[in-house]
Amino acid sequence: MASYLVTGAAGFIGSVLAARLIKEGNKVVTIDNLSTGKESNVPAGCVFIRGNTYDTDVIAQLEKYSFDAVFHIAGQSSGEVSFENPEYDLKTNTLATLLLLDYCKKHGVKKFVYASSMATYGDHPEELVSETSEQIPKSFYAVGKLASENYMRIYSGFGIQCTALRFFNVFGIGQNLDNLKQGMASIYLAMAVNDRHIFVKGSKDRFRDFVYVDDVVQACINAVDVPRDEMFDVFNISNKRKITVEYINEMICRRIEGTTVEYGQGTPGDQFGIYGENQKAKEKLKWNPQIDFETGMNRFIDFVLSDANRH
Amino acid sequence: MASYLVTGAAGFIGSVLAARLIKEGNKVVTIDNLSTGKESNVPAGCVFIRGNTYDTDVIAQLEKYSFDAVFHIAGQSSGEVSFENPEYDLKTNTLATLLLLDYCKKHGVKKFVYASSMATYGDHPEELVSETSEQIPKSFYAVGKLASENYMRIYSGFGIQCTALRFFNVFGIGQNLDNLKQGMASIYLAMAVNDRHIFVKGSKDRFRDFVYVDDVVQACINAVDVPRDEMFDVFNISNKRKITVEYINEMICRRIEGTTVEYGQGTPGDQFGIYGENQKAKEKLKWNPQIDFETGMNRFIDFVLSDANRH
Repeated sequence: MASYLVTGAAGFIGSVLAARLIKEGNKVVTIDNLSTGKESNVPAGCVFIRGNTYDTDVIAQLEKYSFDAVFHIAGQSSGEVSFENPEYDLKTNTLATLLLLDYCKKHGVKKFVYASSMATYGDHPEELVSETSEQIPKSFYAVGKLASENYMRIYSGFGIQCTALRFFNVFGIGQNLDNLKQGMASIYLAMAVNDRHIFVKGSKDRFRDFVYVDDVVQACINAVDVPRDEMFDVFNISNKRKITVEYINEMICRRIEGTTVEYGQGTPGDQFGIYGENQKAKEKLKWNPQIDFETGMNRFIDFVLSDANRH
Repeated sequence: MASYLVTGAAGFIGSVLAARLIKEGNKVVTIDNLSTGKESNVPAGCVFIRGNTYDTDVIAQLEKYSFDAVFHIAGQSSGEVSFENPEYDLKTNTLATLLLLDYCKKHGVKKFVYASSMATYGDHPEELVSETSEQIPKSFYAVGKLASENYMRIYSGFGIQCTALRFFNVFGIGQNLDNLKQGMASIYLAMAVNDRHIFVKGSKDRFRDFVYVDDVVQACINAVDVPRDEMFDVFNISNKRKITVEYINEMICRRIEGTTVEYGQGTPGDQFGIYGENQKAKEKLKWNPQIDFETGMNRFIDFVLSDANRH
């Protein structure tokens, strides 16, 4: 049994990760400000501290715990929203990471796993991005994620093994269907279920590389459990596959009858297309994603439809 | 006559830049928190707002002005100090840039010039770094400078011409001899004048690329005055010449008799050696540095010695 801090366990990825860790018999503490997450998402058995990860008073509440690892998953996660309040974005995505790393340094926490993002690469539409591809962030969100990675590299010099996982488009059951600014698949799916009409901000030819949330959670766990020599490392968490906006919506329209699709203006900082090499995570993290896009999407749609029918 | 905001005009580079702009008949406003600068450095005729550039209340005091350009020079400038208080470093070096860029966006300021740093490159001891060299920041200070550059790239999309000048080791008359944590040449010179003993933190073989402050100020001015098409660009402000720690101290010892040199442990995040290509600034900014290291250093030593004699 181990003890973990999982920030953001009222949110999508954090809640699934925390539930998994608790199920396996570990102790889990979380911090979440409920800005987009819901308290009901925090798994039973998880110690919940409500607050901002960038508040020193909140971090001070961790003094009494001792963690084997910190999974820093919390953070404003929409590139679009980062344009509305860049200062909040800097605090939630960068200052928070800094304070948590400093906490780890002061309290001897040996492992730190971070939810970084494919957004740090910016646009590479012609190219399969690998971990050594150039990072030219296009949104405030992406600037903050990149700065966090750079802070981790420095803190790894203080004896903390720091792993930055560059998540590509994470999707699946648990994703917030009320938030229409985050999560391409969940946004379109929510529109289809609610209105039978999908309004797309940007081109149908844009593409993403989707990863199912359970596979992402496995990557987080492997980042702590699989022994490695490197004190700092970054990994793409991706499926090495281009999925276009059009393909997603065709799938949704087949499953949810009568849904129409309309294309409009894009959002600032949106990447046109990106997909990622995942060989490094497969080799060094022994990561082996199990759920392809179609399987994951059908599972997600089944869940949403059965949930909608219940109400 | 134009109107400028120069942040940090109580500090070294900011004060020389503000004085030059005022001398040429322009209006200058400054913000400085006097954390390392001195109010007496603020040139006569410069409107002085005392405060932190990362405080929204301070930025709000700029509402009544209209600027042709902003020179953002203020900021904690020591890699070493950034390890003592990473949070302050993030605020002063990153949040401040974000708030000022946002001010420019809201008030239609068309040009933004930023004091970035060669520190953003990290270690490239074998290589002459150009603007396209990889940036792997080794200090909190450098992480913040790089994040600021990335913010500028985004704001350039809002119609602000943003120029990041990556200063190499700036030195010269006006440098603060009381601050023994910032400025390699000034630190050694201060020790020689005060104690006739130089204690070096790190190897004598480390090297830097020195640029005289008047040349740096000229680069700032050219970044605003020389027409360019690019809305975002970065330039090394360097002399393309390796100067070793040993060479600096030999020079100082020749001029200040009886000075001894001792070598000790290095500081965290210190780059071993770096020097920079400057062809891009020469071509696109029409920048032509005038003062070589020996000329500048002798001028600086002359000034310090005459100043010391006066006291």
